[in-house]
Amino acid sequence: MRRFLKKQSVTAGLPPGSLVHIGEKRTTTPKLTLFQYDEESLHEEELKDISDLDLTKKKKMTRWINMDGVHDTAKVEELGNQIKLHPLTLEDIVNTDQRPKIEDYDKYLFIIIKMIYVDEHQQEITAEQISLVLFDSMVISFQEGEGDVFNTVRDRLRKGKGKIRKSGADYLLYALLDAIVDHYYVVLERVGTNLESLEDVVVHSPTPEILKEIYYLKQDLVVLRKSVWPLREVISGLQRLETPLIKDTTDIYLRDVYDHTIQTVDTIETYRDVTSGMMDIYLSSVSNKMNEVMKVLTIFASIFIPLTFIAGVYGMNFHLMPELEWTYGYPIILLIMGLVGGTMLLYFHRKGWL
Amino acid sequence: MRRFLKKQSVTAGLPPGSLVHIGEKRTTTPKLTLFQYDEESLHEEELKDISDLDLTKKKKMTRWINMDGVHDTAKVEELGNQIKLHPLTLEDIVNTDQRPKIEDYDKYLFIIIKMIYVDEHQQEITAEQISLVLFDSMVISFQEGEGDVFNTVRDRLRKGKGKIRKSGADYLLYALLDAIVDHYYVVLERVGTNLESLEDVVVHSPTPEILKEIYYLKQDLVVLRKSVWPLREVISGLQRLETPLIKDTTDIYLRDVYDHTIQTVDTIETYRDVTSGMMDIYLSSVSNKMNEVMKVLTIFASIFIPLTFIAGVYGMNFHLMPELEWTYGYPIILLIMGLVGGTMLLYFHRKGWL
Amino acid sequence: MRRFLKKQSVTAGLPPGSLVHIGEKRTTTPKLTLFQYDEESLHEEELKDISDLDLTKKKKMTRWINMDGVHDTAKVEELGNQIKLHPLTLEDIVNTDQRPKIEDYDKYLFIIIKMIYVDEHQQEITAEQISLVLFDSMVISFQEGEGDVFNTVRDRLRKGKGKIRKSGADYLLYALLDAIVDHYYVVLERVGTNLESLEDVVVHSPTPEILKEIYYLKQDLVVLRKSVWPLREVISGLQRLETPLIKDTTDIYLRDVYDHTIQTVDTIETYRDVTSGMMDIYLSSVSNKMNEVMKVLTIFASIFIPLTFIAGVYGMNFHLMPELEWTYGYPIILLIMGLVGGTMLLYFHRKGWL
Amino acid sequence: MRRFLKKQSVTAGLPPGSLVHIGEKRTTTPKLTLFQYDEESLHEEELKDISDLDLTKKKKMTRWINMDGVHDTAKVEELGNQIKLHPLTLEDIVNTDQRPKIEDYDKYLFIIIKMIYVDEHQQEITAEQISLVLFDSMVISFQEGEGDVFNTVRDRLRKGKGKIRKSGADYLLYALLDAIVDHYYVVLERVGTNLESLEDVVVHSPTPEILKEIYYLKQDLVVLRKSVWPLREVISGLQRLETPLIKDTTDIYLRDVYDHTIQTVDTIETYRDVTSGMMDIYLSSVSNKMNEVMKVLTIFASIFIPLTFIAGVYGMNFHLMPELEWTYGYPIILLIMGLVGGTMLLYFHRKGWL
Amino acid sequence: MRRFLKKQSVTAGLPPGSLVHIGEKRTTTPKLTLFQYDEESLHEEELKDISDLDLTKKKKMTRWINMDGVHDTAKVEELGNQIKLHPLTLEDIVNTDQRPKIEDYDKYLFIIIKMIYVDEHQQEITAEQISLVLFDSMVISFQEGEGDVFNTVRDRLRKGKGKIRKSGADYLLYALLDAIVDHYYVVLERVGTNLESLEDVVVHSPTPEILKEIYYLKQDLVVLRKSVWPLREVISGLQRLETPLIKDTTDIYLRDVYDHTIQTVDTIETYRDVTSGMMDIYLSSVSNKMNEVMKVLTIFASIFIPLTFIAGVYGMNFHLMPELEWTYGYPIILLIMGLVGGTMLLYFHRKGWL
Repeated sequence: MRRFLKKQSVTAGLPPGSLVHIGEKRTTTPKLTLFQYDEESLHEEELKDISDLDLTKKKKMTRWINMDGVHDTAKVEELGNQIKLHPLTLEDIVNTDQRPKIEDYDKYLFIIIKMIYVDEHQQEITAEQISLVLFDSMVISFQEGEGDVFNTVRDRLRKGKGKIRKSGADYLLYALLDAIVDHYYVVLERVGTNLESLEDVVVHSPTPEILKEIYYLKQDLVVLRKSVWPLREVISGLQRLETPLIKDTTDIYLRDVYDHTIQTVDTIETYRDVTSGMMDIYLSSVSNKMNEVMKVLTIFASIFIPLTFIAGVYGMNFHLMPELEWTYGYPIILLIMGLVGGTMLLYFHRKGWL
Repeated sequence: MRRFLKKQSVTAGLPPGSLVHIGEKRTTTPKLTLFQYDEESLHEEELKDISDLDLTKKKKMTRWINMDGVHDTAKVEELGNQIKLHPLTLEDIVNTDQRPKIEDYDKYLFIIIKMIYVDEHQQEITAEQISLVLFDSMVISFQEGEGDVFNTVRDRLRKGKGKIRKSGADYLLYALLDAIVDHYYVVLERVGTNLESLEDVVVHSPTPEILKEIYYLKQDLVVLRKSVWPLREVISGLQRLETPLIKDTTDIYLRDVYDHTIQTVDTIETYRDVTSGMMDIYLSSVSNKMNEVMKVLTIFASIFIPLTFIAGVYGMNFHLMPELEWTYGYPIILLIMGLVGGTMLLYFHRKGWL
Repeated sequence: MRRFLKKQSVTAGLPPGSLVHIGEKRTTTPKLTLFQYDEESLHEEELKDISDLDLTKKKKMTRWINMDGVHDTAKVEELGNQIKLHPLTLEDIVNTDQRPKIEDYDKYLFIIIKMIYVDEHQQEITAEQISLVLFDSMVISFQEGEGDVFNTVRDRLRKGKGKIRKSGADYLLYALLDAIVDHYYVVLERVGTNLESLEDVVVHSPTPEILKEIYYLKQDLVVLRKSVWPLREVISGLQRLETPLIKDTTDIYLRDVYDHTIQTVDTIETYRDVTSGMMDIYLSSVSNKMNEVMKVLTIFASIFIPLTFIAGVYGMNFHLMPELEWTYGYPIILLIMGLVGGTMLLYFHRKGWL
Repeated sequence: MRRFLKKQSVTAGLPPGSLVHIGEKRTTTPKLTLFQYDEESLHEEELKDISDLDLTKKKKMTRWINMDGVHDTAKVEELGNQIKLHPLTLEDIVNTDQRPKIEDYDKYLFIIIKMIYVDEHQQEITAEQISLVLFDSMVISFQEGEGDVFNTVRDRLRKGKGKIRKSGADYLLYALLDAIVDHYYVVLERVGTNLESLEDVVVHSPTPEILKEIYYLKQDLVVLRKSVWPLREVISGLQRLETPLIKDTTDIYLRDVYDHTIQTVDTIETYRDVTSGMMDIYLSSVSNKMNEVMKVLTIFASIFIPLTFIAGVYGMNFHLMPELEWTYGYPIILLIMGLVGGTMLLYFHRKGWL
Repeated sequence: MRRFLKKQSVTAGLPPGSLVHIGEKRTTTPKLTLFQYDEESLHEEELKDISDLDLTKKKKMTRWINMDGVHDTAKVEELGNQIKLHPLTLEDIVNTDQRPKIEDYDKYLFIIIKMIYVDEHQQEITAEQISLVLFDSMVISFQEGEGDVFNTVRDRLRKGKGKIRKSGADYLLYALLDAIVDHYYVVLERVGTNLESLEDVVVHSPTPEILKEIYYLKQDLVVLRKSVWPLREVISGLQRLETPLIKDTTDIYLRDVYDHTIQTVDTIETYRDVTSGMMDIYLSSVSNKMNEVMKVLTIFASIFIPLTFIAGVYGMNFHLMPELEWTYGYPIILLIMGLVGGTMLLYFHRKGWL
């Protein structure tokens, strides 16, 4: 559950705009890459230093600056100052436990969103905070660490596939959002595959261990839900926003992203319903098993206890027990025992316990 | 649960408008049929090739083009280009895991909806995606495979029954939507019949197997609900839309479809309530059964265990046990045993366990 | 659960306005009655034939036409054509599985509502669909069968009690709605009385049968709720409607009906809460009973099993068992048994199981 | 649960404005008291007869007429006619099973509200309906019986404390509402005290009886909730109402009453949450107890059953059982028994059952 | 649960504006501190007496008056009169069981909010009511007792860090609100840590005691929720308020506080979900344990009960039991016993109970 808790408390009481990194401590050096492109050309570059960033030249090109590693608050601040971000924006960028949101600072749009992917090493769902800043002809993206879901966007930029090189920064923003939301499907598919195999086990051969797996799956869904619900508001906010930063022609694409988000929300809700149903069936199969165990016990005990009693009676040492002297005493008593046992079996059969 | 999962992930990161078929792989050749009609005449034709489609001639007639088999993305694209559909529309048509929705592209209306029917071969509820495009005097419908719920509409067209031949493309759209929504009733009736027979079993003779059936029914309802809820928004969106494509005289018919949709939603919610109630009664009947088993065990054990103890005492081999030598020792002890057993029976009778 | 299911499916795909009767098949001949009245006079008549209906004469009188038996679709159509109802209205009238709703057709208002009453023969709650059509000076009511809740309204008309003869058709509509909604109280009272007696049984002497009764009561509430919730929208829709058909002076009476509807909804919700509470208490009293049974079993078994073991030991036939030869062996062993049993009793007493 | 049910049905079908008393039958004579006051003087009087009421004189004074005993419909009607109340208002006053509501009749405001107090004789929560009518300079309050929560208001009037004598009828209305809402706290405190002591019992020594107490507490909360929820709408309706009957200076006081109402609602919801939590903990403590009982049974049975078997073996009467003749047969067998028992104890200890 | 209950009832029926302290009785003397500051200078002072407060001089400075100890109603009233607070404001300040709210009294804004912190002595979550009053250039804060979360704000004031000394009273209000809301994180982190360790115990080694801890945690969350939900409305109300008291430049900071509040709400809801999940897993692990106990009992009883019966049969004293005389009677019977026991073991193994 480590993912529920981030050390928010260290910022309690600090003045607004204090840059304190919240989140996993990382030691890697932040990496800064720059894409500059227009319809004809593309220039891709890794920036050693933020001061290398020259925002004046090549004015007509669209720029995408990506920064990996927001734990280096000094670098974030340096970059932020150069492109004139509000201190509160910077605070939100480095504090990686933000709720997804969209804010309109007139000069730029600021979007916080959760990128979700399956960490291949640890085989678990990981959420990373992406902050996106949209200027008139520039997008800046801030990530927690290296590794992201933007490779397809980079490829499309490099190869000039589709509309991406012909369109402006708002289309690039859309492309990045789309890549993030599309990746939710990948994660949900994985969850769905888990769900399918769990369902199989639960319905056909439930074991106590399955319970913990259902539990962890449920918690994963709680966390996913917490990321996706506000996303819905973010994207619809983006659509409704009246800002010159987003052109009318991009609206239709945002609507598409919005549809995908809604569908993700729907899928998560469906999965939650399915999980609850699985929990119910598990619990009741436990009850059924107990019932079966009880029946076996009851049948054995109820048949043999009276028989043992009869044997006990004729094991008594009274001097005067006439039955003991009868020639056929023993076989008669065995017959009686057989009859008692048979009657019991018949009774349980009628009850439907056999 | 195969129906929860479609391989959405393959499109992650592709540029918008990439036509990737999502859904069951089908190998059949797509089939294209064309209805052209006005009040006087009807022309029905199966198109071998999309280029056979001549949209210029017979301008005053209403056209309905139906395509079975959206897995053939090349054909969808060819048709789409000829009638000038937006790339995003085409993407949604071939990606058959869309949420029902309505989109207004000014020149045309685009509607995605789920057609639900019971597959007679596999005896299970099947959902297929229908995409409807409404132009000024043309409706195009895209289906996943052959077989649909539109035969009654075709009959009405052929026979010229009712208003359908006298009215325009918007009325045809209504007729198609109405056929789809009406078919939800057929499916719900089937679910309802299942529910009725399950209820009968649950109330009168619950078995562990019934639990799985309730579980699958519940999942079916979850899936149905996921299809029907957005339908509600789609139809009400269609009513509120201010578009010249839908004439005022059609509004009243759309209101009728809307009423049917609401009723479908209500019925599903009622079924969900009923299913929960059945789950409760099943679980508690399991408890009752266990209780009964426990009572039988307790009665047998509690009566015979003390008696066996008494027999055990007089089976001891002490040299000096005066009772053993008494003439009436044995009958007295049998009498005592009878009294103890009788007292126990009386006690359990008082407790209400007998 | 027969009440959940009506054969809606037969209309799937038919053109709108097709008159197909949905609902219980009835064989009785439809009955048509006409009330014509103004402040001074009242004319009551049973119409043999629809053509007897002369809508031209006596223009200043208010008319109430009541038709029992909408299964005779031909008659409904004949009447509908004479008073110029829209085909969709007629379709809704004969299809008696509609959701309560209100529709404004400019020339008339169309209201569908459920009349609920306790069928005295079958002792169960029955819902019947009433369709009400309000013209400028005429109300037409369509019922499924004979027998209704309007007798008090008829009496008030005949006796000229209250405002009813002095007011117009809209007041008559109010009076009919009020009679229907008031009858919900009668049904709810009956449900409440059941609830009270069930509660008594559940709290003081729960039996497994009670569970089924709670279950059926719950289903009844589900069905009632499905009828009453939309009623709320219908009445509030009626209040908000801007139509000349309803005079301002009638508004205050509609507000009164609305209040009653809200209260009915509240009562149903309260009953649902109470039913859930009863379910909980039943289930937990089952647990308690099981617990008690287990305790008796445990006490008996745990006391006598060790004693029987001791007896068993001295029933062994070893040649050399010194205790057997002691003069006081037998009483000593009985004493030991008494001590062991007493200790056990003390232990269980401490545990609070006795 | 008698409080859920009032004989509403008797009014079904009666014309609106029929005065039928719904509610507990009372035999006491209605009591009518009148307060007339302005800043300087106060005149308090018990009216023997309604005709004693002279509404013409002393025009500048504020009047408060209080009537105890609405079961006397004749008196209510007489008073109602004298102050010109609408027939529907009178119907609502005598029908004491109304939902709290506010209605604006232009000339007067009509408020129905539930007064809740703990009946000291029967030690249970009692709800009584209060109807308040606000005229320009007069408030009339109708109560079901004697005894109310207005004594503090009367005292403030008599002593001229605070603003009450200086302000008009709307302030008096506020004071009465405030007294009623404040009394909800008294009742909720009592419920809270019960909750606290129940929680103590549930957490530390749950007994089956506690369950019924939780159940009744829950039902009390259901009833309280039903009274308080609509109250919220009533008070906020009162605030939003644009009427000259309420002066702007009184708004701030109404806001205060509104805050109290919200807080009451919050407290009830919190109590409901707490009650559910207690139910859960009770049920699971029952499970735990059962578990403990089962463990004791299992330990005893599992230890002694094998030992008794061994004893039984050497109690067999075979002629040739060599062990029986061994000199140390008996002690050896006792040792073996000790070992078997010890092993079992060790096993259960490892399982954590001891 | 002492925290649910405060003696609200003592104010029932008192005139509005009656200052009655609700809440824990405290005996300490109230403490009054004053900060006066502008960009250049800061003056900090502890006021012995309220009359020391001179509101006329140093007009251009911003003032922050903090009062610890609202139980001294006389002092609160004295201060209130000097700064001209409405009597209802004063009543709310001393009644410390208010719901968080915001009220606009034109001349000043009045905010009630709950300050939540972990009491280090009693190790439990404590809520204290803070009332904030915002004038044009003055903030007054009222606290229940000494000790608060404002030290960081005081430090920033003293050191002149950030914008705080350069901005006005509205920014100070923001800073105080921010400090309070930030402290919710500290408390939630603590709750989260508890949750994590509880989860660990529940999943790996649940004990009955854990249940009570989950229960208390749940109640804590109920109380936290009750404080935080209205906070959301308060802050968003503050943002929407059109008042000259709050400058436009402060809006962006309030939006930040609002985001934090939403996130707090989200976290509480997530924790509630997690707690419910833990409850489920606990309950079902109890069921599993019971199942395991039952299985051990059943296996032991079912194996040895038939064997004991066989031994009992050959312990009978019939004179004619041929088997007893056989030379190999004893070993044969032992063999049979072994076979029976082995068969049982095999059967249980097949059942999967071993």
